[in-house]
Amino acid sequence: MSENKLSRRDILKIGTTGALGIAGSFYLNKVSTFSGGGVVKAENHHAGSKKSHSGSHSNMMDTTKTEGYKMAERLLTEFDYGKVSTLSDGRTLREYEVVAIDKEIEIAKGIKFPGWTYNGTIPGPTFRCTEGDLLRFHFTNKGSHPHSIHFHGIHPPEMDGITSIAPGASFTYEFEAKPYGLQIYHCHVLPLARHIHKGLYGNFIIDPKTPREKAVELNMVMNAYDLDLDGANEFYTVNGYAFAFMNHPIKVKKDELVRIYLSNLTEFDLINTFHLHANYFTYIPTGRNDNPSQFTDTIMQCQGERGIIEVRFPYKGAYMFHAHVSEFAELGWMGFFEVI
Amino acid sequence: MSENKLSRRDILKIGTTGALGIAGSFYLNKVSTFSGGGVVKAENHHAGSKKSHSGSHSNMMDTTKTEGYKMAERLLTEFDYGKVSTLSDGRTLREYEVVAIDKEIEIAKGIKFPGWTYNGTIPGPTFRCTEGDLLRFHFTNKGSHPHSIHFHGIHPPEMDGITSIAPGASFTYEFEAKPYGLQIYHCHVLPLARHIHKGLYGNFIIDPKTPREKAVELNMVMNAYDLDLDGANEFYTVNGYAFAFMNHPIKVKKDELVRIYLSNLTEFDLINTFHLHANYFTYIPTGRNDNPSQFTDTIMQCQGERGIIEVRFPYKGAYMFHAHVSEFAELGWMGFFEVI
Amino acid sequence: MSENKLSRRDILKIGTTGALGIAGSFYLNKVSTFSGGGVVKAENHHAGSKKSHSGSHSNMMDTTKTEGYKMAERLLTEFDYGKVSTLSDGRTLREYEVVAIDKEIEIAKGIKFPGWTYNGTIPGPTFRCTEGDLLRFHFTNKGSHPHSIHFHGIHPPEMDGITSIAPGASFTYEFEAKPYGLQIYHCHVLPLARHIHKGLYGNFIIDPKTPREKAVELNMVMNAYDLDLDGANEFYTVNGYAFAFMNHPIKVKKDELVRIYLSNLTEFDLINTFHLHANYFTYIPTGRNDNPSQFTDTIMQCQGERGIIEVRFPYKGAYMFHAHVSEFAELGWMGFFEVI
Repeated sequence: MSENKLSRRDILKIGTTGALGIAGSFYLNKVSTFSGGGVVKAENHHAGSKKSHSGSHSNMMDTTKTEGYKMAERLLTEFDYGKVSTLSDGRTLREYEVVAIDKEIEIAKGIKFPGWTYNGTIPGPTFRCTEGDLLRFHFTNKGSHPHSIHFHGIHPPEMDGITSIAPGASFTYEFEAKPYGLQIYHCHVLPLARHIHKGLYGNFIIDPKTPREKAVELNMVMNAYDLDLDGANEFYTVNGYAFAFMNHPIKVKKDELVRIYLSNLTEFDLINTFHLHANYFTYIPTGRNDNPSQFTDTIMQCQGERGIIEVRFPYKGAYMFHAHVSEFAELGWMGFFEVI
Repeated sequence: MSENKLSRRDILKIGTTGALGIAGSFYLNKVSTFSGGGVVKAENHHAGSKKSHSGSHSNMMDTTKTEGYKMAERLLTEFDYGKVSTLSDGRTLREYEVVAIDKEIEIAKGIKFPGWTYNGTIPGPTFRCTEGDLLRFHFTNKGSHPHSIHFHGIHPPEMDGITSIAPGASFTYEFEAKPYGLQIYHCHVLPLARHIHKGLYGNFIIDPKTPREKAVELNMVMNAYDLDLDGANEFYTVNGYAFAFMNHPIKVKKDELVRIYLSNLTEFDLINTFHLHANYFTYIPTGRNDNPSQFTDTIMQCQGERGIIEVRFPYKGAYMFHAHVSEFAELGWMGFFEVI
Repeated sequence: MSENKLSRRDILKIGTTGALGIAGSFYLNKVSTFSGGGVVKAENHHAGSKKSHSGSHSNMMDTTKTEGYKMAERLLTEFDYGKVSTLSDGRTLREYEVVAIDKEIEIAKGIKFPGWTYNGTIPGPTFRCTEGDLLRFHFTNKGSHPHSIHFHGIHPPEMDGITSIAPGASFTYEFEAKPYGLQIYHCHVLPLARHIHKGLYGNFIIDPKTPREKAVELNMVMNAYDLDLDGANEFYTVNGYAFAFMNHPIKVKKDELVRIYLSNLTEFDLINTFHLHANYFTYIPTGRNDNPSQFTDTIMQCQGERGIIEVRFPYKGAYMFHAHVSEFAELGWMGFFEVI
């Protein structure tokens, strides 16, 4: 695929205009240049720059709801609670169907990635349950390579997913959901970096028995893609699609509580970070209320780290959020909340 | 400029003697070699090594107060409280003048960097106010490129500085100072990494309404410079000038409280770190007393992170401080406290 | 040495089978592939793969207790309390003998590293004492280069180890042990990265006067080796030997308290991380009970950071632990607890 020939350097070289192009119209309206006598509309600025960058620009512009965007948007608010039933001892049993499948994923406008997925998306579904539930993950490997599911959390070690499940084979992971907090899951077949990087990961929320305060709940997995397999990523995203929430901001209401389940599954970079503009949030590491929380606007996570962000927006308007690693932001890990 | 041809590798290759050369006389007196029969004076050791490295050494030796050092020293203790007046409702109004100007900055002895600056220094001025003050930042872009000021903190998002201000244009950022803590500010024009890396950043202190305990207060911004534009830094500094406080240690008194406002604005490296020798400090993330503090001697910050360090020195003498990333330390991010 | 010609890329290229080869038989029994109709035994899988990788495999397979493994195992549980006596004022005096010696160290099966060591191991001995003890470290440099010992902790700065001790010379570091917690020590001679990376570091435990709860206590230093001196590491380990605890898991009992003194002395990578499978632990930064602890399964440390991990294993079985940087894990930083 010719799209995959783009190197990290090429993408960064496109520069201001190109990045604006990727970022699209919502951003352009926000970042229009102020030149003293009035605001130079984004359209004008853009028209001027079109001459030199029209090719890359029109190719990467993203004002429609592409497949990639739809995936990212769906993953933002869709939680998989499994098929629910009640055990004879009164406990809740949740059964989840998980299938590993090779699938090409649109990771940025016009850019496809030959993914290995759980249930056809990168990241995979956000599994959700309550502490104490009995969980059964019926896993079938319909992919071309051996895979597994390694769940974070406390459970018998034989359920920890280090045994490879061969293509065509099935396995059921069964354990009690504990401890409450934000967990993650990912493939644990060697070579690890490659299996994870191909897209086999997702969030896994274990709610506390006493429910958290009512809130708008959002799921965000920070990840990245190494298209040319050189061990450096060319695109960085939240929920799999570069600049997803730049063109289609996440709409929230003034003053309402927003809770974000945030994890870092980025390979090849040692950390990833989250920064929110014009506001502060409370960060709860691992989603544990007994962990020390922070009131800040910038946090970092190593691979496998995760936490809950709780935030209210005191003013209406468009709040940017992005990695506070400038390069990651410019390569796709930027978005907006639109507060109405 | 021929000085700018030095690559990171070249600088590290200069090795022990060269680094001592950069570090200068104060360090040499401290690190003189002990050879059993007595101390081999730094002067001797130094004289001996002069033969092979005299060129680089005499070039980089820094016993005088150079322009670059003076900048770093001034930024250490100078806080810009703005032009103060009282509003009709009794609130304090603070007005700051900020001008973006292209300026060549001495970043190490004999090494110039073609900077983009706020008010002519890298980092820019340390803005300071008290929570609840009304702030007006009158920004004029006298630089050659579009710029802006993005302030961290809580304020209406239209004041968050993502709109570019064209060369020659002006804009006033106005908002109430909140929340108390250590904020940062930086340019937010794309490409982000390049605009920030060129020098457009600084600390922004919002004091709590109930003042903090009286202390010697120091401002420290960790940064770095990529002279050859290869995406890797060749010099690392605190307050813009490599090895600034090696030759001219920061003088403090035994047992007095020292408070350091520390932030990380380093581009191209995912984190930066701060380590103090022979002592421990209290680290307060984001400068918030309600955040969990740590008693330690080594902390890390991702880009955009910041915090307050509070420390007392129980013994007289010279306490080294530096990044606990060895390479950053050797490339300029080292200094001394001299406790008297 | 031809073994040292292996680059990081070469080692990763060996891929799944090769890594299994390094990891050895214990891991193979654990990760045998499940193919639906039954478990394909590790032996079979292994035999099959022998055809293509028999060279690298048989070379790197590690079922015997090699010298390198023995070193790592010894460092896990051996604490150097020094030669103990009582001072006239009733205080405990501890005297330690430390000798810097150049020594070739087996860092992975069949791979030797030309180390600079304290007392012949990488990492060096784990010095241990109680807060308030008077400590004397009698250091003799029998190595080929100037060295020193820089101790973290609070003490007079002239004892902080920035003065080089010439080959053949001796120096005694003397100070009171404080504050309690987990400290580290390392050489502080320039160039720093090279002196540290060659192996001159270790843990230094200062116990609180009120002893911690009784536990199985383990010492773990995360490090890495750059064999080809290109500024990137080829092997990552805990206690100096790649995959040490993969073939010979650390045996602990169900439900008993395990306390790990964990530090990061890795050069050339900005952070290192620790992840435990199928369980959670309490992480106490810098080993200070007054620091905010976390209940999680994944933590990161920058170079020089350290902390205490406390954990109980609720189920029997084999619990993997490793860096949650996939590449580090695959290059040696993986092991098992076997809970009986």
